[in-house]
Amino acid sequence: MEAIRWQGDSLALLDQTMLPAQECWRVYTDFRQVAQAIRAMVVRGAPAIGIAAAYGYCLAALKGEDLAQAKAELAASRPTAVNLFWALDRMETAARQCGGDPAKLAAQAQALHREDAAQNETMGRLGAAVVPEHARILTHCNAGALATGGFGTALGVVRAAHRLGKVDMVYADETRPLLQGARLTAYELLADGVPTTLIGDGMAASLMAQGKIDLVLVGCDRMAANGDFANKIGTYSLAVNARYHGVPFYAVLPRSTIDPSLPDGGGIPIEQRPAEELRTLQGVQIAPADVPVYNPAFDVTPHALLTGVITERGVAGPPFTETLAALLRP
Amino acid sequence: MEAIRWQGDSLALLDQTMLPAQECWRVYTDFRQVAQAIRAMVVRGAPAIGIAAAYGYCLAALKGEDLAQAKAELAASRPTAVNLFWALDRMETAARQCGGDPAKLAAQAQALHREDAAQNETMGRLGAAVVPEHARILTHCNAGALATGGFGTALGVVRAAHRLGKVDMVYADETRPLLQGARLTAYELLADGVPTTLIGDGMAASLMAQGKIDLVLVGCDRMAANGDFANKIGTYSLAVNARYHGVPFYAVLPRSTIDPSLPDGGGIPIEQRPAEELRTLQGVQIAPADVPVYNPAFDVTPHALLTGVITERGVAGPPFTETLAALLRP
Repeated sequence: MEAIRWQGDSLALLDQTMLPAQECWRVYTDFRQVAQAIRAMVVRGAPAIGIAAAYGYCLAALKGEDLAQAKAELAASRPTAVNLFWALDRMETAARQCGGDPAKLAAQAQALHREDAAQNETMGRLGAAVVPEHARILTHCNAGALATGGFGTALGVVRAAHRLGKVDMVYADETRPLLQGARLTAYELLADGVPTTLIGDGMAASLMAQGKIDLVLVGCDRMAANGDFANKIGTYSLAVNARYHGVPFYAVLPRSTIDPSLPDGGGIPIEQRPAEELRTLQGVQIAPADVPVYNPAFDVTPHALLTGVITERGVAGPPFTETLAALLRP
Repeated sequence: MEAIRWQGDSLALLDQTMLPAQECWRVYTDFRQVAQAIRAMVVRGAPAIGIAAAYGYCLAALKGEDLAQAKAELAASRPTAVNLFWALDRMETAARQCGGDPAKLAAQAQALHREDAAQNETMGRLGAAVVPEHARILTHCNAGALATGGFGTALGVVRAAHRLGKVDMVYADETRPLLQGARLTAYELLADGVPTTLIGDGMAASLMAQGKIDLVLVGCDRMAANGDFANKIGTYSLAVNARYHGVPFYAVLPRSTIDPSLPDGGGIPIEQRPAEELRTLQGVQIAPADVPVYNPAFDVTPHALLTGVITERGVAGPPFTETLAALLRP
């Protein structure tokens, strides 16, 4: 399953706002359209928006546009996931080295894309080691192939563990408001034949109390140097519940999601999304039209609630300030 | 705001599945239709379904139908809220005393209806004492006028505290899957001019971490003798988070919601609702059509997570086995 295709002179994105009802590819030739697609969540997931932005940068180079301007506009599309800025920094460095040659920049973006997918395979293999036999796994939002360059972070570990015959059930939080769990995770896992049960976000704690969850695997949008991390709103509530019930709780991410410039999670900017995401659902009014809404896209989970961090370089445990720094060494 | 009207020879219910988009009253003359309306959640909320069932029993008496059969069919409509069985037991006792006289039974059902509303006013007044000045209150689902004979349980306390000028903000969980928070609580509170903010169910923990919640008030569908209680799915997750963040957590209920025949929450039957409630939303497909679903309507919160129980006879604290027994004495 893939969601991002470079077509030589254009970028094709599988429109994730339309899944699973429709598999609709959209084609972009202008970096501004790519920035808008990221903002509108046609493409979403920290690694995937980094890759899409890298290709957007290539589109600017192809048209001979101002690359500094393109970088700034693409970087302004969403504030929380650090992979976006990381990918654009890599593209800028490459542009400096190749004098902005579009073909070389495209090769760089494709390398970044392939690397991400390969890293996911590696973290899947490494992460599968922490999954027990007959595992009942809870996940939140979509940290799958659709959120990355392929295979997935949290769902990459699920896929690798499933291949080893270790997965009895994946419980997928539907993940309000945009339902990435119901629309994307359920769709990905069913396509791969992984046993999946869809639940409402408020049901996970009850499953934990019944002893039906063996571990929680989530993705990550940005992790500070001490292991505090931002992920889809609702993650923190799960982490508190996992701790209360003694359920292991792992974040799964490539090292590019770690932002060592931030000492802790207090510095991670949290995007506020439009009120209409909660007042309406696919055009249907589900709340009073004038009700005030609080709609942050992410919350921050403190490192103290994390059992471990699964990356392509291995699984880090506490104390995270030291173990994450070790993982980040070249 | 009212949702249940006795019309002498028929029962009118405000269809709560259509709110807030449409205010549609449905009129019933047959008890079987009332049982179906309870099942379909045209009327919902533990006290409200008890009242509706009592009027359904009156409809059976008016038509000269078998009252034992009517009681059995009405009682089979939903399994968790004990008020349903309590109200039907009261109607049966009355029927025995009056020989099934329809006018006397209607008077009994109306008395039960008025009593519930009056009890809500009382528990609102008593409960408002635990609400601090400038309170930011979190609530889940709808435990309001629409869920009761009037005024509300949890929202009754909110209303009473608001009249005293104590409420800075009510955060209303939207409450998936049926969105009673978004559709009903937001609608009720805005109509009364109570400052209200709608949030997704996964956002409450993040507000607690930010110190923005001073107390949690929820309703209750059935409370065991030790204080363990069933309420709308998602309540338990909030209770765990409230405890983790040191936020006081109260259940608000009339004494008719206490089931002293159950020593603890393990004996409360939990209704499983149709998978389509999670796969679709108002007819719109929001998940793969074939994804397996776990959709319990309620969860059980253990008494250890409760700060107190607010009833029309006062606020009970731990040890609940003793304090609830004291409240239940005539």
